[in-house]
Amino acid sequence: MKKLSFLVLFLSLSRLGVAQSTDKDLIKEIYDAALQNGKSYAMLHDLCTKVGHRLSGSPGAAAAVEWGRHTMDDYGFDSVWLQPVMVPHWVRGQQEVGRVINSKKIGSKDLTILSLGGSIGTGPSGITANVIEVKSFDELKQHGQKNVQGKIVFFNRPMDATKINTFAAYGGAVEQRANGASEAAKLGAVAVIVRSMGLNNESYAHTGGVRYAPMVKQIPAVAISTQHADLLSKVLKDDRDLQFYLETHCESLEDAPSFNVIGEVKGSEYKDEIIVVSGHLDSWDVGQGAHDDGAGCVQAIEVLRLFKMMGYKPKRTIRAVLYMNEENGLRGGQKYAEVAKLKKENHLVAIESDRGGFTPRGFTMTGTESFKSKIRSWKPLLEPYDLWDFSQEGGGADIGPLGPLGTALIGFLPDSQRYFSYHHTQEDTIDKVDKRELELGSASMAALVFLIDRYGLK
Amino acid sequence: MKKLSFLVLFLSLSRLGVAQSTDKDLIKEIYDAALQNGKSYAMLHDLCTKVGHRLSGSPGAAAAVEWGRHTMDDYGFDSVWLQPVMVPHWVRGQQEVGRVINSKKIGSKDLTILSLGGSIGTGPSGITANVIEVKSFDELKQHGQKNVQGKIVFFNRPMDATKINTFAAYGGAVEQRANGASEAAKLGAVAVIVRSMGLNNESYAHTGGVRYAPMVKQIPAVAISTQHADLLSKVLKDDRDLQFYLETHCESLEDAPSFNVIGEVKGSEYKDEIIVVSGHLDSWDVGQGAHDDGAGCVQAIEVLRLFKMMGYKPKRTIRAVLYMNEENGLRGGQKYAEVAKLKKENHLVAIESDRGGFTPRGFTMTGTESFKSKIRSWKPLLEPYDLWDFSQEGGGADIGPLGPLGTALIGFLPDSQRYFSYHHTQEDTIDKVDKRELELGSASMAALVFLIDRYGLK
Repeated sequence: MKKLSFLVLFLSLSRLGVAQSTDKDLIKEIYDAALQNGKSYAMLHDLCTKVGHRLSGSPGAAAAVEWGRHTMDDYGFDSVWLQPVMVPHWVRGQQEVGRVINSKKIGSKDLTILSLGGSIGTGPSGITANVIEVKSFDELKQHGQKNVQGKIVFFNRPMDATKINTFAAYGGAVEQRANGASEAAKLGAVAVIVRSMGLNNESYAHTGGVRYAPMVKQIPAVAISTQHADLLSKVLKDDRDLQFYLETHCESLEDAPSFNVIGEVKGSEYKDEIIVVSGHLDSWDVGQGAHDDGAGCVQAIEVLRLFKMMGYKPKRTIRAVLYMNEENGLRGGQKYAEVAKLKKENHLVAIESDRGGFTPRGFTMTGTESFKSKIRSWKPLLEPYDLWDFSQEGGGADIGPLGPLGTALIGFLPDSQRYFSYHHTQEDTIDKVDKRELELGSASMAALVFLIDRYGLK
Repeated sequence: MKKLSFLVLFLSLSRLGVAQSTDKDLIKEIYDAALQNGKSYAMLHDLCTKVGHRLSGSPGAAAAVEWGRHTMDDYGFDSVWLQPVMVPHWVRGQQEVGRVINSKKIGSKDLTILSLGGSIGTGPSGITANVIEVKSFDELKQHGQKNVQGKIVFFNRPMDATKINTFAAYGGAVEQRANGASEAAKLGAVAVIVRSMGLNNESYAHTGGVRYAPMVKQIPAVAISTQHADLLSKVLKDDRDLQFYLETHCESLEDAPSFNVIGEVKGSEYKDEIIVVSGHLDSWDVGQGAHDDGAGCVQAIEVLRLFKMMGYKPKRTIRAVLYMNEENGLRGGQKYAEVAKLKKENHLVAIESDRGGFTPRGFTMTGTESFKSKIRSWKPLLEPYDLWDFSQEGGGADIGPLGPLGTALIGFLPDSQRYFSYHHTQEDTIDKVDKRELELGSASMAALVFLIDRYGLK
């Protein structure tokens, strides 16, 4: 009896040994391929320089859809298709102006502003008004209608630089950008200027979506560079009656037709179990959308390409999904989940990369405890590649709508320190991306997909 | 008895609780100060743009010494002084030429080359010779004198991109640069061209030190950009009789006087126990020496400045040391240890930052097991700041000579992915440094110094 159980133990251990060593070897093969012959950077260079920025509904977005389809077609995935989706179509229009007028301190001076996505414009005659600076919605409410009525509200609470995780700092400040316009409008403000969501002293502004509350008057909303936010705040201290001139020409047009772009490699054993790797194809209308989120798109495509290049035939079906319209509507992610539900597709897991192409550090997870334990059980295989952080909750905006269908959600988690230097700005360009960091991200996602494909999540 | 031991346990635990919480608070204070009011980036900007590159013996090095002294003087450290040291004085001289002549494939074409530091020059008439490409010293030896005599040897083994730690990749290739000239000269070669120590396809070359072996004829040694290394290799395949023209004007002058720059805050309790935080002040004569190693210098200064700003009075004496001549002689590090020995100074520990100003990940250590255990016992306090890697052996080139005096050695360990894109090149400039990543490095070093200062290493 003792002898038998020893034998069983021995056999299990050696089988484990073989499996582990094969996993180890295959994961090394994935990383070697990515680091020696990876195409993530070349793809991203292409997308950034040939297409450039690509806000939903824009010609750039249409070009990006074609870029995605052609790129995946060229790699010869089993099938590549476009999934139609109607998207919001917001346009910035001509040159925007934000001008301090006749300040006692600095005279008249143009400041660096940038309309927030989805904002209405001021129209060609602009808005001229006094400015009231606040740091929070509470402070705004304390001022009350009598102090806010007819003014431009200047939300100037900085992101908290002491947060080590910059996404936490973003989370603590972004309500000003998202909801500030409606909060101010409730008290009669005529426009809002929001301090850019950046951690440094920067000369350029960060755009990003504004969310108008239903039944509240819509007023123009612009971001101001952190440098000029500091300047404006300083000037306002001595000159409360300062006049500010704002002129923006943005507007929302009719919804436009667009597409999610999907590439697929069919599973050999469990073809009905789908693993999604994804990023979003749209970007804001400044810069090149390199880190946000060209990086995620090329990493998703690269997972399938690496497998193909290595001759690895997945047991499960793997899809690269490039969602349209993450930035100002999430219509792509919603449409994808809607179709998945309609077709009764079984999405085992969805992974999104939407935190930039920086050095990988781990994955965030949303789902059952048993799913999380399963993923964490692979830590010993992933730690040699500096994937050490499996502790955070999270997934991705576009894959969120799959959650209610029972799909486990995973977010690729790279280093966060530089992300908010580029996010939603003219600076989010290909030269800010390091090739090795980007390719390592692709390899990290591929390694995880390989393990899920091989062992499932049960 | 039971009651008593319970009481003792309770008291120890609560004391531990207090100490831990104070440590935690003080470490948070350090990080908050660095992230909100850190001066590392401003200092580095100054050094890079006002001084620029600063090879030992150059006017830039002299300016950097004054920069270091003034910077620390201005911060009001207890004392700031210069420690004299004689350094090698190598100069590059006028424009260098590396030219393929009359290749069947590409005709005549100038390639991007850069003399290795310490190399002799070809003289104004240059060297014209055939080129023989090899990947290793073994391959070179197999060719033997008959194939090498009179030729230029082209060492073209790339850094191994599959190593996740790029310093391991560097370690596996750098012998070609350091020792290639002498190995080739032993077989009668007239010069060497060495593939740049870079991981990417780059248009610029990486310099770095060549070490001539004693009693072996010295021959000119240049680096070639990775892009042109690939081109030269391709051309050589079809055209073995290719002629290459090399013209360099570098030379070694007489040793020159220079200095280590030292700033000190005196300990209040154990002033004879010295903690060194350091980087090296010299750089190669291209770029601005931003990551290598301006970053280390400003981080060392910043540790003392942060303590001063916070009003933290160290129990032990803390010195910021900016070593001269790490790149081509290590004379500064040797001199510092020599003086320490002569004065019988007790250096408890020396920390060096010389791996760039990137996101921190931990510390390397060289010393006794009990020292390493002590440092690792603080991991719970440091992990919230993403310091997780305490496993690697190492210290720093400049602090190495303190090792034999019984000093424990620590190397600051940041993310390594981007380092070799800039190392020893024209690209190592301030715009490649991220402010947050740099300041986080200073805070990480300060947090560790704080713990060592408070608890010692026993």
